[in-house]
Amino acid sequence: MTKGTIVALTGGVGGAKLAAGLARQIPASRLKLIVNTGDDFEHLGLQISPDIDTLVYTLANLVSQENGWGRADETWNFMQALGELGGETWFRLGDADLAMHIERTQRLMAGEPLSQVTAALARKLGVASAILPMTDQWVRTRVATDEGTLDFQDYFVRKACKPTVTAIRFEGADGAQPSAGVIQALEDPDLQAIIICPSNPYLSIDPLLSITDLRQRIATAAVPVIAVSPIIAGAAVKGPTAKIMKELGIAQCSLEIAQHYQGLIDGIVLDHADRHLAEQLAIPALVTNTLMRCEQDRERLAAECIAFAEQLHCRVKADT
Amino acid sequence: MTKGTIVALTGGVGGAKLAAGLARQIPASRLKLIVNTGDDFEHLGLQISPDIDTLVYTLANLVSQENGWGRADETWNFMQALGELGGETWFRLGDADLAMHIERTQRLMAGEPLSQVTAALARKLGVASAILPMTDQWVRTRVATDEGTLDFQDYFVRKACKPTVTAIRFEGADGAQPSAGVIQALEDPDLQAIIICPSNPYLSIDPLLSITDLRQRIATAAVPVIAVSPIIAGAAVKGPTAKIMKELGIAQCSLEIAQHYQGLIDGIVLDHADRHLAEQLAIPALVTNTLMRCEQDRERLAAECIAFAEQLHCRVKADT
Repeated sequence: MTKGTIVALTGGVGGAKLAAGLARQIPASRLKLIVNTGDDFEHLGLQISPDIDTLVYTLANLVSQENGWGRADETWNFMQALGELGGETWFRLGDADLAMHIERTQRLMAGEPLSQVTAALARKLGVASAILPMTDQWVRTRVATDEGTLDFQDYFVRKACKPTVTAIRFEGADGAQPSAGVIQALEDPDLQAIIICPSNPYLSIDPLLSITDLRQRIATAAVPVIAVSPIIAGAAVKGPTAKIMKELGIAQCSLEIAQHYQGLIDGIVLDHADRHLAEQLAIPALVTNTLMRCEQDRERLAAECIAFAEQLHCRVKADT
Repeated sequence: MTKGTIVALTGGVGGAKLAAGLARQIPASRLKLIVNTGDDFEHLGLQISPDIDTLVYTLANLVSQENGWGRADETWNFMQALGELGGETWFRLGDADLAMHIERTQRLMAGEPLSQVTAALARKLGVASAILPMTDQWVRTRVATDEGTLDFQDYFVRKACKPTVTAIRFEGADGAQPSAGVIQALEDPDLQAIIICPSNPYLSIDPLLSITDLRQRIATAAVPVIAVSPIIAGAAVKGPTAKIMKELGIAQCSLEIAQHYQGLIDGIVLDHADRHLAEQLAIPALVTNTLMRCEQDRERLAAECIAFAEQLHCRVKADT
């Protein structure tokens, strides 16, 4: 059992599941989650941070188990009324969920940085682990497709990932710095491991890695960095990962995930279905069941990730 | 039965009841409601127009009969969640009602004038009568009290009308013009009567009359102008009218209402309880039941107001 802190890099739904498992395995004060904000957008005049909210709701045990995002026992009367008024209803905001967006927007407009707003709101909902936006600055994921360049939510929600992706860009990343909490988490002398959650590498993790300083800190971290592959037997558990890999001309294989994170990770976690790939890798692999169907799956995978990183830690130490 | 158009000046709940009665008595295209916007405010980043919304919901048959404002069958999950996040909950916004504020705010921010936004949203909810904000410009009711000068909603909702009122001001009124629809309604050659609804004269009707051009147009209208007194036997049906009159050193009496509207009105509608006051007035009075407890009351009072104005019309014509 680890005594140090664990940093996890995560996007939304898939990453949040592993994050929830980690939160059950180690004390809250020792878990720090660096979250993608490239999906953030302004909609209906509100500042919406989908991945942050998914993390907050998941760790607060408020998330809809059915959707993996949004709140459980949600009502949709706002959306219904907005539709009757001719408003935009393609991005569904639940009644209780709206409170998060309105309160966040208020605080951002008053000049609070996103990291401070997120910390305050997460605390109010009883989340004790640190949920850290990757940056307090403006970074936006843009998806170049056969239908033109789309804002992330246009591509992801409005067009349901149907357009063919030709490139993904992160506007604003060039000038962006990690938020202070992110730097602190990565500089923590008690840091023991960095885990890249099984989020979409291209849409959810690359925004973090597009911030040069953040990428550099992970590449040069003195602790083991491991990634959990989101690909199982050539398919993604959820979302467009496999579809995007195909469109970008990348084989839909965990080897490509390892390749994508090359220079950053010291080990990768593969599903049993991909056990044959382990020997083709230049880095250690943990082969286990990576599909998280229930709470037990999450906790087990989280524990295995921590233990795997710990072994790597010993190895690293032995090497030096 | 009137063939011309009727203009009614109204604030929120009390005025909306008579407006709803009028809407049942004459075809929609012949009813034009000029609505107080001095109560409008920005809250939670949203542009809220309480009196306009009360009119829209009432005429759309969506209003909460219990409250007289807001929507029937409303849910409050947003408010509940906002409270959990530490947000401001003193001004209660229902889940479906929120759609109105968010859509309005969006459109205003995009540069649409309030009158256009109001017309579009009212039409979407099936309201056929014209709901006309008194002005598209910024006018705000400020209440000077023993606790200092308060924004209207601070006084009215947050402090529940408890502070002692020393004066009421309408910021921005000096430079404000009536909206184009208001001018059109008052210049309409088919205009037959102007009815001042039994709203609070000091808080809900004075904002309209504080716009010089609007007051002037009513004072010089070629048609009868009548007011329905909101005071019955020295008390107000609802809200702080009587309390404010007392605090401002005005007798809580319909004679004072007539006095307040002197130079503007040609007739006043009094409740049976105040029949003895009729003979002390210099203008004609209609004595009837002015308390609107049900739909029948509203329709009857509306019909009586129209008929009363019509009689005055004949009189005016006979005079000239």
